[in-house]
Amino acid sequence: MEFTAKQIAEILNGTVDGNPDVKINNLSKIEEGKKGTVSFLANPKYTGYVYSTEASVVIVNNDFVPEKEISATLIRVEDAYQAFAKLLEAYNQIKLNKTGISEKAHISESAVLGKNVYVGEFAIIGDNVTIGSNSKIYPQAVIGDNTTIGENTTIFAGAKTYSDTIIGNNCTIHSGAIIGSDGFGFAPQSDSNYMKIAQIGNVILEDNVDIGANTTVDRATLGSTIIRKGAKLDNLIQVGHNVEIGENTVIAAQTGISGSTKLGKNMMIGGQVGIIGHLNIADEVKIAAQSGISKNFRKGNIVQGSPAFDIVKYTKSYAIYRNLPGLWERVNELEKKVKE
Amino acid sequence: MEFTAKQIAEILNGTVDGNPDVKINNLSKIEEGKKGTVSFLANPKYTGYVYSTEASVVIVNNDFVPEKEISATLIRVEDAYQAFAKLLEAYNQIKLNKTGISEKAHISESAVLGKNVYVGEFAIIGDNVTIGSNSKIYPQAVIGDNTTIGENTTIFAGAKTYSDTIIGNNCTIHSGAIIGSDGFGFAPQSDSNYMKIAQIGNVILEDNVDIGANTTVDRATLGSTIIRKGAKLDNLIQVGHNVEIGENTVIAAQTGISGSTKLGKNMMIGGQVGIIGHLNIADEVKIAAQSGISKNFRKGNIVQGSPAFDIVKYTKSYAIYRNLPGLWERVNELEKKVKE
Amino acid sequence: MEFTAKQIAEILNGTVDGNPDVKINNLSKIEEGKKGTVSFLANPKYTGYVYSTEASVVIVNNDFVPEKEISATLIRVEDAYQAFAKLLEAYNQIKLNKTGISEKAHISESAVLGKNVYVGEFAIIGDNVTIGSNSKIYPQAVIGDNTTIGENTTIFAGAKTYSDTIIGNNCTIHSGAIIGSDGFGFAPQSDSNYMKIAQIGNVILEDNVDIGANTTVDRATLGSTIIRKGAKLDNLIQVGHNVEIGENTVIAAQTGISGSTKLGKNMMIGGQVGIIGHLNIADEVKIAAQSGISKNFRKGNIVQGSPAFDIVKYTKSYAIYRNLPGLWERVNELEKKVKE
Repeated sequence: MEFTAKQIAEILNGTVDGNPDVKINNLSKIEEGKKGTVSFLANPKYTGYVYSTEASVVIVNNDFVPEKEISATLIRVEDAYQAFAKLLEAYNQIKLNKTGISEKAHISESAVLGKNVYVGEFAIIGDNVTIGSNSKIYPQAVIGDNTTIGENTTIFAGAKTYSDTIIGNNCTIHSGAIIGSDGFGFAPQSDSNYMKIAQIGNVILEDNVDIGANTTVDRATLGSTIIRKGAKLDNLIQVGHNVEIGENTVIAAQTGISGSTKLGKNMMIGGQVGIIGHLNIADEVKIAAQSGISKNFRKGNIVQGSPAFDIVKYTKSYAIYRNLPGLWERVNELEKKVKE
Repeated sequence: MEFTAKQIAEILNGTVDGNPDVKINNLSKIEEGKKGTVSFLANPKYTGYVYSTEASVVIVNNDFVPEKEISATLIRVEDAYQAFAKLLEAYNQIKLNKTGISEKAHISESAVLGKNVYVGEFAIIGDNVTIGSNSKIYPQAVIGDNTTIGENTTIFAGAKTYSDTIIGNNCTIHSGAIIGSDGFGFAPQSDSNYMKIAQIGNVILEDNVDIGANTTVDRATLGSTIIRKGAKLDNLIQVGHNVEIGENTVIAAQTGISGSTKLGKNMMIGGQVGIIGHLNIADEVKIAAQSGISKNFRKGNIVQGSPAFDIVKYTKSYAIYRNLPGLWERVNELEKKVKE
Repeated sequence: MEFTAKQIAEILNGTVDGNPDVKINNLSKIEEGKKGTVSFLANPKYTGYVYSTEASVVIVNNDFVPEKEISATLIRVEDAYQAFAKLLEAYNQIKLNKTGISEKAHISESAVLGKNVYVGEFAIIGDNVTIGSNSKIYPQAVIGDNTTIGENTTIFAGAKTYSDTIIGNNCTIHSGAIIGSDGFGFAPQSDSNYMKIAQIGNVILEDNVDIGANTTVDRATLGSTIIRKGAKLDNLIQVGHNVEIGENTVIAAQTGISGSTKLGKNMMIGGQVGIIGHLNIADEVKIAAQSGISKNFRKGNIVQGSPAFDIVKYTKSYAIYRNLPGLWERVNELEKKVKE
């Protein structure tokens, strides 16, 4: 792929300031720019680099006024960051444009595949599976029996769905993610053994859901574990059986959510958070990394700690925690004085 | 699959109260019951739903006395919860009844398979592997050389055992679990490099062990990492080299156990717990979620914190921690008064 | 494989004390020694076992003076531990000496493989991949397009690299590890949806890097996520996009490192540590298990806590934390007395 500055400006609806014929074939950070790449300047902190970058083209905001000479060709647009993100996306689309159905894949005769579906080598499409148009099943992905996948969804190499999973449109499931494994349900018996409770429910991922690498989402005991549209899950997250995650809730890596808990919409959850089961957390709650959630919180609460409480109070308590030896000394001193 | 209420009552050794000919083909929670499903009532908290549920059949305890009219057919049994669990299990068994050996699997000529073994597509059975009767190896599972697997054991899609692993009867290993990877052993060298210590031991899982999705169990440096019979491990757990986990010990997701630690029987370990190496924890110890275990505990201790100590004391300390700014103020006040 | 004590002594440049013709075919811990195995004694704590072990051969330090009769043959060397590690390594090399290219693997026509490369069943070698001599690609590993792998590197069963990954010489990547998944980058939109930021960078692993089972390393948004030579990562670790990990830094299981953070050389990081993004941590910093790192630290700092600070101060604060109810009582008492 090779484009001129002029061609890119046309795509981005921008204007060229410099040589319109300079050629680019890759994208770069402005501080690591190289000949033949296009970069961007959005954060004023990086302005210094625009004068020294070796990138051939830099996308800038319309109102950018250089204070020195710039060797790169500039493309002026309304929002340099958004324009660059659009270029990244276009580049990625071309790169990931896998097509065709590998003869080395195993596809059940009862599976129904839409138009332009990609199925890679050694992928397995189970019985009664339906896959919507333009979806991509990378090599060695396993799509369990009776799974339904919408359109424009990507399942990367080696991700696995157990049977009966339902996945919407425009979802991305990264390598090693496991969707629909058994919930952790065991009934204690009188002899201290445990009896496994069969897990016959499923997992539903609505549209625009992202699941990170090696994340696990357990199927429901009965009914469904549900991740609502637009929710974004990072890598190595654990989602227990019968959990429900609200729309556009974002969860960082290595967080775990225990069974039957319901998370609200638009939540932001840091990494390595643990959430106990059977809770009902309101919309827009924010949880600091490494917190432990043991009770419900109200809309918009921001919490930290294990167990977590209000983040401002937590921060004050922690500041004193750091000084506990000082406090201890002061109490010693007081006791001495009072004794006198 | 379709059954009448009468047929189900016979299986469960119960009595029908209502239409014995109503048909069911699935199971449901009482609050989400639909026509054609069987549900159950065990927890009195849910009694209200028995009058409104759309489930065609509800299993109840013998002593249940309705206070209003009920449209569903009732099946009365001694223990409604246990009876329902039995139905769940039967349903699941039928659903998971995969059989046969795929021609697309790779099975070493030196492997020995028992009766009714299932091997899915692209699964790999290595040299000198033995698999007992009625065990199921799902697609893309990798069974490393010299591995022994007992009877009635299920290895789900893409789970992997390294060489020399020994797995008992009635075990379940979920997708993405890795059994027998190298222990994390490196000897520091004088030049700040590390020399890898070869890990030539193995992993032993006794009977009735469950291993969750994407959990990792490292092989021993020498000897064996052992998980004793009946132990249940959730998803994304790390088990270090030469660890031993006692019988019927239950471990929630994302917990990590460092090398050479020995855990007792009947322990209950919460999620995201970290346990350092070379410990010897007694039977029946309970560890709260997110705790850090840095020393041994005695039989029956219940602990919390990082590092962990008695849970009652921890809870008291944490209550005061939340009020540290108040305590600080009181000490300020006291100092002022004493100065006066 | 069977060797005599004499043969082993020659390999280790040691001297035999006892029967030089005794045969061994395996290695063992001294406390679990069995006939036909060779063991070692390095830690004085274990000296007692040398008199009772059933191991046929025990490797000891030159200066070891027995106080009783010993039935095992001794091999005396300068450093018994190093000598035994050498034996372990030799044993492992023989055991893992897989060779050949499976006809059941899928290898792109544009891939270039060096001498003596092993490729296992159902492994996938993508377009334009280069693999150096003596490297081993185990069954079901997926090597994404344009990946470069050096010499003597081992990729275990089912590990996966996304496209454009660069891996050096003498690296080991364990089963289930995912190298090059998308960084977790989403731009919030005005309607509370998130727009995915395409991740077009890659991952670079330099020489002698070890990656544990089910560990995930995200590709950079732009540029590279880099793990420098000699770094050792345990299982289930999360490495965010654009992270850089310094030479010979060692990281225990289940730790997570957020995007764009740069870790120094020779660091030691405990298990379940969380590190926020955009930090720059100096060389030789040591971080206790379960700590949360929210700011930069200087060379050689040793820290604990969430958020972490100096480990000695942390330990003092925690000692008082355990006694907070006592401190509370003392302040109550003081208030009473001062009131009087």
